[in-house]
Amino acid sequence: MANSLLNDKISVVNVGVEGFLHSVTDHGGAALHLDWRPAGDGDPALSWAVAGIAADADDADAPGARVDAANARAAQQMILAQPMLVDIALHARDVWPEMGRTLLHAGAPVAWERMCGPMQGAMIGALLYEGWAKSADTARAMLASGEIAFASCHDWQAVGPMSGIISPSMPLFVVRNATDGNVAYTNMSEGIGRVLRFGANSEEVLDRLRWIERVLAPGLKVAVNAIDGGIELKPIQSQALLMGDEVHSRNSAATLLFFAAIAVPLIESDFDRAGVREILNFVGNTSQFFLNLSMASCKATMDAAHGIEGSSIVTAMARNGVTTAIRVSGLGARWFEAPSDKPVGLYFPGFSGDDANSDLGDSAITETTGFGGFSLAASPALVQLVGGTVTEAVSYSQEMYDITHTRNPAMSLPLLDFLGAPTGIDIRRVVETGIRPVITTGIAHREAGVGQIGAGIVRAPMGCFSAAAMALAQSYGVA
Amino acid sequence: MANSLLNDKISVVNVGVEGFLHSVTDHGGAALHLDWRPAGDGDPALSWAVAGIAADADDADAPGARVDAANARAAQQMILAQPMLVDIALHARDVWPEMGRTLLHAGAPVAWERMCGPMQGAMIGALLYEGWAKSADTARAMLASGEIAFASCHDWQAVGPMSGIISPSMPLFVVRNATDGNVAYTNMSEGIGRVLRFGANSEEVLDRLRWIERVLAPGLKVAVNAIDGGIELKPIQSQALLMGDEVHSRNSAATLLFFAAIAVPLIESDFDRAGVREILNFVGNTSQFFLNLSMASCKATMDAAHGIEGSSIVTAMARNGVTTAIRVSGLGARWFEAPSDKPVGLYFPGFSGDDANSDLGDSAITETTGFGGFSLAASPALVQLVGGTVTEAVSYSQEMYDITHTRNPAMSLPLLDFLGAPTGIDIRRVVETGIRPVITTGIAHREAGVGQIGAGIVRAPMGCFSAAAMALAQSYGVA
Repeated sequence: MANSLLNDKISVVNVGVEGFLHSVTDHGGAALHLDWRPAGDGDPALSWAVAGIAADADDADAPGARVDAANARAAQQMILAQPMLVDIALHARDVWPEMGRTLLHAGAPVAWERMCGPMQGAMIGALLYEGWAKSADTARAMLASGEIAFASCHDWQAVGPMSGIISPSMPLFVVRNATDGNVAYTNMSEGIGRVLRFGANSEEVLDRLRWIERVLAPGLKVAVNAIDGGIELKPIQSQALLMGDEVHSRNSAATLLFFAAIAVPLIESDFDRAGVREILNFVGNTSQFFLNLSMASCKATMDAAHGIEGSSIVTAMARNGVTTAIRVSGLGARWFEAPSDKPVGLYFPGFSGDDANSDLGDSAITETTGFGGFSLAASPALVQLVGGTVTEAVSYSQEMYDITHTRNPAMSLPLLDFLGAPTGIDIRRVVETGIRPVITTGIAHREAGVGQIGAGIVRAPMGCFSAAAMALAQSYGVA
Repeated sequence: MANSLLNDKISVVNVGVEGFLHSVTDHGGAALHLDWRPAGDGDPALSWAVAGIAADADDADAPGARVDAANARAAQQMILAQPMLVDIALHARDVWPEMGRTLLHAGAPVAWERMCGPMQGAMIGALLYEGWAKSADTARAMLASGEIAFASCHDWQAVGPMSGIISPSMPLFVVRNATDGNVAYTNMSEGIGRVLRFGANSEEVLDRLRWIERVLAPGLKVAVNAIDGGIELKPIQSQALLMGDEVHSRNSAATLLFFAAIAVPLIESDFDRAGVREILNFVGNTSQFFLNLSMASCKATMDAAHGIEGSSIVTAMARNGVTTAIRVSGLGARWFEAPSDKPVGLYFPGFSGDDANSDLGDSAITETTGFGGFSLAASPALVQLVGGTVTEAVSYSQEMYDITHTRNPAMSLPLLDFLGAPTGIDIRRVVETGIRPVITTGIAHREAGVGQIGAGIVRAPMGCFSAAAMALAQSYGVA
């Protein structure tokens, strides 16, 4: 018996580093591998900090239990939110008279020199559209000179897809959370092809922006104003989950539901007949039209969950094309940033990963709410666009339950037997598990002026979450 | 060794009757059960007949090989079909001047005395709607007297959901298969609630029929006529499969796609503004509006596959509320009938299976084409209406591959990794495997005048297929 370890076949449970496993199996031993890693990915200070605020059911006064209680309130705010499209502002400057020559952009604040190509391209386009510059060269010089102010959309209660540029003349959707009264804004979809949000700025792009300002926004405003109370956005998102959308990178059903909601009020209005036709043709042929509304719906939802003292729930994930940044409910307006990854996905013919910009846009507000990558199980058809298999799509959603606080009963995922979508990213769980939030996304060319070159999937970088977890632990005095 | 069978534990493969299995396992034996049954369910003549026309790749002149070749042609006809909504006939009598006082109905021909309650109720309603009778009692007496002619919709190139009543004043959708030029007809959806097709015949029901004739049909006719070539129906059905519909019992996405297709032509027309609003409100709020169009699309598809000599492909499955009847491509206009089962499903509050009529309606033409129960894997959300789990929904589709000739590349099922839907029911395989086609369906109350009481799933009875298989074998001289 004393020699059995040496003489018998050994059976081993290997915890953590997988390399040790092979030294057992290579010599004929039986081994079960447990895929474990220390919280904080080996950083002792971070591990200690996360342990200090870990869930704690035994002691209601312990920091972890207080985080849990705050998170329950934040999640409840998300579940109770009722985002309504209540109006269209014909120009952003009407909403923000102080706007002056400010351009809003996606993600956390970023200086001109550090901006990615597509964001610079979109800003150049915005100056041409506003008439502040007559040529791209002049626009570039003005942008570099400091005479144009930049601000993060999120800091103005707004969100914008991809580069997310909002300039003073652009119309805005106005979305109000009927439960709490908070308001969120977003710009309007430009459709597909060469578009400002992906960094294109040709005359065709500017013409479409002018059409949005001149026709689309006034027409939709008349229609929305005719609907008593506005248009409820959450029921559209919920129905769309049953119809193959995850309402981030696929909005085919949601757009049709929105189309059906506005068609009758629009045709009953006294709005110009040719304009009505143009609007319905545009919305009906832009399968991603609803994305901006989905984002504003999510922004109105997440702002209602923000500012709850001690909560570790993420209330914004936003990418400026250089960094991914998150905000946390209990940590105020501070952004926690880390360099963005490049999406993995499918490219349009002639393009490859070498051409891709890093992950870009405010649209990850949908994942923050539990849509997008978190609801990928709802959208098997999306794998045709972003790559992968249906099984993988389902497993992404399943994985996200490990890092979220709850299941949203209003967001039912048929392929998970109608389980509510994973909702409320908990920074503690992200750090503890090493599982990073999954995001579905369009892919922009890294150079200004080119546009979209594909679509895919990306993970938010761990650095945002570890920095935020450290800050939260410090706020509890345990780091 | 000689005694090993008695002394050792025995291992058995049990084929067929499951009862024998237990005599082994009850005494500690290991047994693998093979779920096999003889083709024809134990009827030697039928087994012999089916064996005579079984698939035969070795001998191209053998009956089975000739059936295979004919089936390949039939399936090709189905795959190549391009059903288009090309027009609306304002009255059925315009299409069929010979109609006189004929009422078309779902399923195979059936005499008044044998008709089920909901079909009788709908016929009474049709007489009131046509003004042929002033009261339900008079109508009933007229219907029993023989002065009203009855005919099967299918015999008039038409299909109708549930009782499927088409009377001379009703408008019809006109669907043309652009590939072969054949035409199919169907009536228009009455929406939900109390409706003629489920056997209701109150004044509210008749008022809606009059509105369809006066407003809906003329308006849609103007819109459809304005679209060059009409509206392609198969792409709508295909897209809907990616959006949670199986385009039989769920048409939410297909209806929205149709709505988007007609909205602009309708508002651009000079049709009365109030009528346009009523039409868009009605279509937009009737999630099953597209069902009738889905059926006519499938009828136009299946008629193109009918009449191919020697083919064993089913070209129609239709239920008159008493029997389920099938037609087979190589067996002419003959119906092969057997008593219908009752659907199993979910009932509206206050109703149960005791109240249910047997399976009813021409809508199983969608299953005949590969939609409906055959594409249930596309519609996880439907299990909320008809019962069961998503896993079961997927397994129904998987099972149907065992009884169909091919996979339709235009009908992609995301949950089966975008495999084409099972297409072309082969009567030989149904008899050989004992697997009966699965159909999703609404459930009507068995009495006249009540209406829909639930929705569920049903299987077509084996008797249709065994009778047809025997007839096909006889046509080949092998039975």
